[in-house]
Amino acid sequence: MTTQQLVEQIHKKQSFLCIGLDTDLEKIPPHLLSEQDPLFAFNKAIIDATHHLCVAYKPNTAFYEAYGIKGWQALEKTIKYLNKNHPGIFTIADAKRGDIGNTSTRYAKAFFEELGFDAVTIAPYMGKDSVEPFLDFNNKHTILLALTSNEGAYDFQTKKIDGIELYKKVLKTSLTYKNAQNLMYVVGATKASFLKDIRTIIPDSFLLVPGVGAQGGSLKEVCHYGLNKEIGLLVNSSRGIIYASKGKDFANEAAKKAKELQQQMKEELKSLS
Amino acid sequence: MTTQQLVEQIHKKQSFLCIGLDTDLEKIPPHLLSEQDPLFAFNKAIIDATHHLCVAYKPNTAFYEAYGIKGWQALEKTIKYLNKNHPGIFTIADAKRGDIGNTSTRYAKAFFEELGFDAVTIAPYMGKDSVEPFLDFNNKHTILLALTSNEGAYDFQTKKIDGIELYKKVLKTSLTYKNAQNLMYVVGATKASFLKDIRTIIPDSFLLVPGVGAQGGSLKEVCHYGLNKEIGLLVNSSRGIIYASKGKDFANEAAKKAKELQQQMKEELKSLS
Repeated sequence: MTTQQLVEQIHKKQSFLCIGLDTDLEKIPPHLLSEQDPLFAFNKAIIDATHHLCVAYKPNTAFYEAYGIKGWQALEKTIKYLNKNHPGIFTIADAKRGDIGNTSTRYAKAFFEELGFDAVTIAPYMGKDSVEPFLDFNNKHTILLALTSNEGAYDFQTKKIDGIELYKKVLKTSLTYKNAQNLMYVVGATKASFLKDIRTIIPDSFLLVPGVGAQGGSLKEVCHYGLNKEIGLLVNSSRGIIYASKGKDFANEAAKKAKELQQQMKEELKSLS
Repeated sequence: MTTQQLVEQIHKKQSFLCIGLDTDLEKIPPHLLSEQDPLFAFNKAIIDATHHLCVAYKPNTAFYEAYGIKGWQALEKTIKYLNKNHPGIFTIADAKRGDIGNTSTRYAKAFFEELGFDAVTIAPYMGKDSVEPFLDFNNKHTILLALTSNEGAYDFQTKKIDGIELYKKVLKTSLTYKNAQNLMYVVGATKASFLKDIRTIIPDSFLLVPGVGAQGGSLKEVCHYGLNKEIGLLVNSSRGIIYASKGKDFANEAAKKAKELQQQMKEELKSLS
């Protein structure tokens, strides 16, 4: 999917919501555990109930890998289901990968070709030749970790390198990479005020913003500092939506939570026009 | 496996060789492609021919993920085969993972419990709460990327933060993490001279050193700067060993290459006693 197509979907749905599919057998409704593939059954129900309210889904690979082959199968079924039934949805593998050149190419093939995701999240620590292999793929998107939503972000990301914080150095350096137009960035909603500075470095890039909801980030603040003329934001909520209820009504309750966020986003989009 | 048991294996085998199982269908001998599971068939043959010459194997997960479910199955079969037949071998999942707290726990479970590896490689960018969940596991080892063997290492890792290079900041900060005794570190052989400084910060820790062989690092130099009184080194070679031949003799040829390195290591170990 091209960035332009993503922007069109946002306008059409009046939503820049990404739903995180952090699917956990200990948190999904117990009645699903008797299904042949409870992880996929849960994801399918959530997708069926919410796909008109969001523009993206983001399974975090950790939750699937924790269940071994069965987990990987559920991840594969989920992405195939999305690509077959909802081709207008932007799909993100939240995998936080990165390795030396020829090995990064393997990861890119795994997520872009073998599974068929539109985007994958990448850690920047290993630098240029760990990121560029992902950027080689046409109409695929590499979402680089810049400033993450967790406490540990202050260990290194906000420390100064060459007079600027490491996360800003990552942003600036990444702009020099080949095919940098295929980059997006992760910026945590818990650090929304940092978005002002970030927008001076990457005014036009799309940002994937986790941390709204369960982690305490404010949608209003994220929009205030982060929206640009092409929207430029995908705001993610995972637990706050998908675990709204443990009952048989879980998918409807998830849709209600998604609708609340979508309505707030609709208001924010009005301010742009 | 405990660190003490690893050291005992090194003394017993007179080797601190780790063999990287970066198994690639385009590079393995063509006659294996008719096997039901060529990736595992290759790994099994390599393991059978080399296990007496090395103390560790390190599959890089990218090579398996690139083949989807089949790849993940081959990875699972490989680690089960190692744990069943060679319990004295130290097993490393070269996965370079890392995420926020509860998600890192999922990755730790995936590699330490579901698959049963002794160790996993981790990227430090997200800081403390992305690393500590891995350190919670008894007798399991978290191998933190410090200074990697690739060109891109110079993008951020060698830049100065608070007056010291980022990789040194990572080393120093990681020592303050809970259960830091479960940490090991990746330091590329292509930057062996950096080991002198590194040993002043982490004199006792084990280092996983890739980059000898195909990437151009020198074993002699690595040993000169990196060996400590408890050895403290696992030197990895992947392509230089496993792809020594594309013929039916591939396992024997791999063993010859492994033997060459093991003999050099034996000489280096003499200098310690």
